[in-house]
Amino acid sequence: MKVYLDHAATTPVDKRVLEAMLPYFSDRYGNPSSIYSFSNEAHEAVEKARGSVARLIGAEPSEMIFTSGGTEADNLAIQGTAFANRHKGNHIVTSAIEHPAVLNTCKWLETRGFEVTYLPVDREGLVSPEKLESELRSGTILISVMHANNEIGTIEPIEEIAKLARERGICLHTDAVQSIGKIPVDVKKMGVDLLSISAHKICGPKGIGALYVRKGTDIAPLAHGGGHEHGMRSGTENVPGIVGLGKAAEIAHAEMKADSEHMARLRNRLVDGALKIENSWLNGSTAKRLPNNANFGFGFIEGEALVLELDFNGIYASTGSACSSKSLEPSHVLRAIGLPPEQCHGSLRMTLGRENSAEEIDYVLQVLPKVVGKLREISPFKKDFGDYEKTLGKGGHGGHAHVY
Amino acid sequence: MKVYLDHAATTPVDKRVLEAMLPYFSDRYGNPSSIYSFSNEAHEAVEKARGSVARLIGAEPSEMIFTSGGTEADNLAIQGTAFANRHKGNHIVTSAIEHPAVLNTCKWLETRGFEVTYLPVDREGLVSPEKLESELRSGTILISVMHANNEIGTIEPIEEIAKLARERGICLHTDAVQSIGKIPVDVKKMGVDLLSISAHKICGPKGIGALYVRKGTDIAPLAHGGGHEHGMRSGTENVPGIVGLGKAAEIAHAEMKADSEHMARLRNRLVDGALKIENSWLNGSTAKRLPNNANFGFGFIEGEALVLELDFNGIYASTGSACSSKSLEPSHVLRAIGLPPEQCHGSLRMTLGRENSAEEIDYVLQVLPKVVGKLREISPFKKDFGDYEKTLGKGGHGGHAHVY
Repeated sequence: MKVYLDHAATTPVDKRVLEAMLPYFSDRYGNPSSIYSFSNEAHEAVEKARGSVARLIGAEPSEMIFTSGGTEADNLAIQGTAFANRHKGNHIVTSAIEHPAVLNTCKWLETRGFEVTYLPVDREGLVSPEKLESELRSGTILISVMHANNEIGTIEPIEEIAKLARERGICLHTDAVQSIGKIPVDVKKMGVDLLSISAHKICGPKGIGALYVRKGTDIAPLAHGGGHEHGMRSGTENVPGIVGLGKAAEIAHAEMKADSEHMARLRNRLVDGALKIENSWLNGSTAKRLPNNANFGFGFIEGEALVLELDFNGIYASTGSACSSKSLEPSHVLRAIGLPPEQCHGSLRMTLGRENSAEEIDYVLQVLPKVVGKLREISPFKKDFGDYEKTLGKGGHGGHAHVY
Repeated sequence: MKVYLDHAATTPVDKRVLEAMLPYFSDRYGNPSSIYSFSNEAHEAVEKARGSVARLIGAEPSEMIFTSGGTEADNLAIQGTAFANRHKGNHIVTSAIEHPAVLNTCKWLETRGFEVTYLPVDREGLVSPEKLESELRSGTILISVMHANNEIGTIEPIEEIAKLARERGICLHTDAVQSIGKIPVDVKKMGVDLLSISAHKICGPKGIGALYVRKGTDIAPLAHGGGHEHGMRSGTENVPGIVGLGKAAEIAHAEMKADSEHMARLRNRLVDGALKIENSWLNGSTAKRLPNNANFGFGFIEGEALVLELDFNGIYASTGSACSSKSLEPSHVLRAIGLPPEQCHGSLRMTLGRENSAEEIDYVLQVLPKVVGKLREISPFKKDFGDYEKTLGKGGHGGHAHVY
């Protein structure tokens, strides 16, 4: 049995999405910027997709800019706001648990004359609006806090943050790459100015994403050229990719409720089963969690070894985030929620998709205890078992066992 | 009959390319950065494609960075060199006939403290290496001259320019988006440090491109994130797109000679036939021209009207470049080669592809004279016929009629 449980890293393209894309490769291949009729169908397909993506998040079609993915959308939002508003100030507020596309962009901006405040989070991974408020100042031009975290699935209080931003006329960006298609996302209700989307996290293709830019929000482009996407994103439109994102958004809009219930049901079954393993815990929040995310800690073992043993059994999961999974650094997210480095190393992220089944989860729950047991037998950490138990307390880190 | 003659704008995806891409959407969909075995096939496919693209241009695989297309590659090359070498100088040299992705990036850099020299070109569209040399100075950090022009197909003397750049340790970038797959491109023979590629101009998919970065060349990334592509281009790899570019490069490598001969034969037939129309001329160079490019001028008519009339007859061509074809500005390329604005407006670009046939060209040659004649009958410029004839001289602008 093959069980893919790394949907936060990437998802299979839905067959309906691929089918929608196919005509735009070799048949309706016109350049949407051309003026002859043959290109109209490509142009119209792009605009239809723009409408579908806008609809998913409650935006106007004219507020959507297509990008090459979430990373570009995050960079366009953050660099774009920073450079367009430099005359108003140089201060940016973000959180310590953002995706590297946000964190590393902010770090880079620090080398370009900007000041960045990295907000701490609590043990559940939540940003405190009060703490955030206390960091705002007259030169604050941007707040960037993710909608939901990619590693532990924590859903941040964006609406509360938006109120603080609005009162002060500060631009608010949120990376919604992990949340769209899983929980309701409505840019107007949330009150955000900029919101990043990626297709390949919602059963769309890789290489395409979008940035919502609220009407009247001033951002500078990253790249310059033919002036596509209102001059905000030059380059011939990736028509099949855009059509794929549009179709994925359409499906997400129609089926999110059922999919999320299905994923939450399976995820709860997975968590219940996995936490029966001794010295295990769930990292992250209880109530404020994406329906498809589980992030476990297992004492005395290395997450990487665990991932490879599961792989050997046909189960695909991750430790840390996919983007940094080839790095040996402990997860910055798990460190930010207060886990000591040795516990960060033992983390296992399992993220579900709509195609996962109860049978698959049952198979995982057969394999997981055996694999954890096997690794513990050969674990070099085992000798410290006594001390470890004392430090950890029963039920593991933060007392999150059996809660989801 | 439908005849697509706008391959410089975009091309149909070759069926073999699409076939190569298909498994990577819904089957081998793993994230190449993940560590489990399921992702290996995606990772290996990316590396195989990197090898194919490198082979097409005589580079090492490790010297190729995948981007979202030609515009991003141009921006990464030019912004990347400018910001990484700011301590060495602030002067950039480019030509007046570059693609907007180069020109507008240079114009933007002028607002960021850089000085840019825009070299004029001669009536054939050629940059003069002597003129270029006279503009080089101690603070020159980058030369960016395209390999072949997208509107008139002129092939620039890159090898000669490279000698000048090498002698002075100046970085040389060339936009080879139009030349790869049509004429030999070898980065070592050419002596360039940076070279831009786009897939959708060589029967690959839209939304993917690459930048060749010679080993040891220092560039700064445009966007920041998970550190993909040696930290030069963050974001989950567009695996199907990369596979598509790789396959398109492989086909171009194997079939370029035959394809180019085929296209040149048809193009010559097209030019011979079209120039029988009175008051017509060929814009661009005679010998130094891409095999698939024809750029005509027809006196007394508007290029846009001509494109729409041809469209009505199932023939798809362009006026100006595709990227700016929705703009009403006269082509900056045609102005740079010395055409007065009214003659720029009457231009018609026809760019061939490997799937075009002699029958298609014959059909175009039946339709074109009729359409030109019809438009001239209703032309408001017609009254100036006498003056115009005098200005133009027999055989049209620059005496380029019947030369290709």
